Amino acid sequence: MAGPVNSDLDHLRVVLVDPRNPLNIGAAARAMSNFGGRWLRVVNPYDVAFREARSAMGAAKLLARAEEYKTVAEAAADCTLVVGTTAVGHRELQHPLRRLEDGARLIRKRLAAGKVALLFGSEKFGLSNQDLSHCHWLMRIPTRAEHSSMNLGQAVAVCLYELVRRGQAPRAKEKKTPAGAGELERITVMLLEALQTSGYVKPRAAEATEEKVRRLVRRMQLEKRDAELWLGMLRQIAWKLEHSKDHARR
Amino acid sequence: MAGPVNSDLDHLRVVLVDPRNPLNIGAAARAMSNFGGRWLRVVNPYDVAFREARSAMGAAKLLARAEEYKTVAEAAADCTLVVGTTAVGHRELQHPLRRLEDGARLIRKRLAAGKVALLFGSEKFGLSNQDLSHCHWLMRIPTRAEHSSMNLGQAVAVCLYELVRRGQAPRAKEKKTPAGAGELERITVMLLEALQTSGYVKPRAAEATEEKVRRLVRRMQLEKRDAELWLGMLRQIAWKLEHSKDHARR
Repeated sequence: MAGPVNSDLDHLRVVLVDPRNPLNIGAAARAMSNFGGRWLRVVNPYDVAFREARSAMGAAKLLARAEEYKTVAEAAADCTLVVGTTAVGHRELQHPLRRLEDGARLIRKRLAAGKVALLFGSEKFGLSNQDLSHCHWLMRIPTRAEHSSMNLGQAVAVCLYELVRRGQAPRAKEKKTPAGAGELERITVMLLEALQTSGYVKPRAAEATEEKVRRLVRRMQLEKRDAELWLGMLRQIAWKLEHSKDHARR
Repeated sequence: MAGPVNSDLDHLRVVLVDPRNPLNIGAAARAMSNFGGRWLRVVNPYDVAFREARSAMGAAKLLARAEEYKTVAEAAADCTLVVGTTAVGHRELQHPLRRLEDGARLIRKRLAAGKVALLFGSEKFGLSNQDLSHCHWLMRIPTRAEHSSMNLGQAVAVCLYELVRRGQAPRAKEKKTPAGAGELERITVMLLEALQTSGYVKPRAAEATEEKVRRLVRRMQLEKRDAELWLGMLRQIAWKLEHSKDHARR
């Protein structure tokens, strides 16, 4: 049962290079699963027991079928595009560098034709120059220059989100049913009645208050179901006010 | 030295509700710092030592100035827009629900005019119906239906990335001054008081009614001046209802 975004990323290989912490590998697996990534590759993991990472909540299968490689070259061998992620700025980059928003668009195109490897470096050092040399180009998540280094699982989450996010598609249709003018007027009348009985309406300003309240009710842009709710509440309040008044008079 | 995206999110309040794990609070702080979020609020944290979370790499200051609150109402009181995040699907939602791509656009607009609270629920249970009732609308990260529940830090990372990512349409100016969450809550309380006194609220459904009314008031999208108008009217009505009751008893 593939989700709507699942098949999109079937050609994507998320490659974690030299990951140190099994929890981070698990977190990356979970993020992949959230957004429909399916194939995780791990190069030279520090902890061989990474498949047991508890942080892979809901992504145990994905983690179990993760493929393990000794080198980046092997992990990317069957891919037609290899992209490295970087926090940038800390060294001279010899590669074309694209912001995530732009790079993701290119990756999406290439995913239609063949496998794409997306490389993430170790938590501490990122991708080495050696690793980078396997990449066609680099991609940078637009973090702040003052604090660019991201948590591994979060970096994977953001990249995969960008790969599956919807473009500026036309907006979803509004399903709301707006209240009719008749309903709005009934609300107005009932509210005015309650205001009258409670002494809010000053006789000399009665007309102005009525207009003010009528405009107020229109500005609420009520849906039909909310109009009914308001009407029910106001009816009860107005009834009680009226009833108490009679009662008090006796 | 503010980064290029920093000032954009100066009005954003990231609110973690009932977070269980200090590591996740730290991870959320780090993600905020990566994308220029500055103000973290924590409601009712399980572990009071959350400020020492080691996972806040590079975001220790942000974590140190995090504000702690007892309730969602207090944490959102000074915000003019309150948005809840949800993995959706696990319960009937009573709120308008927007995809992150669309919701973020609206949030950006509103950030120009005032503070916006973005709520994240606990790792295990998400936001409760009580929490949700404080929200104007809800936002969903487009994860797969089969695995929608995200890690807290990753969810914060993805939302803030979407808020600062490039490629959005030029901002529209908001001329209206929206009502603050504090004002909306006062309206809610006053309306509930009137409904209580008038016999609208059935004792057995009191809690459900309270949530229903709270959501209703948020859906009105009140401007500040209209909020004041409502408050004045409801105060008078509530006073009269109370007064009549006493009078009738004598």
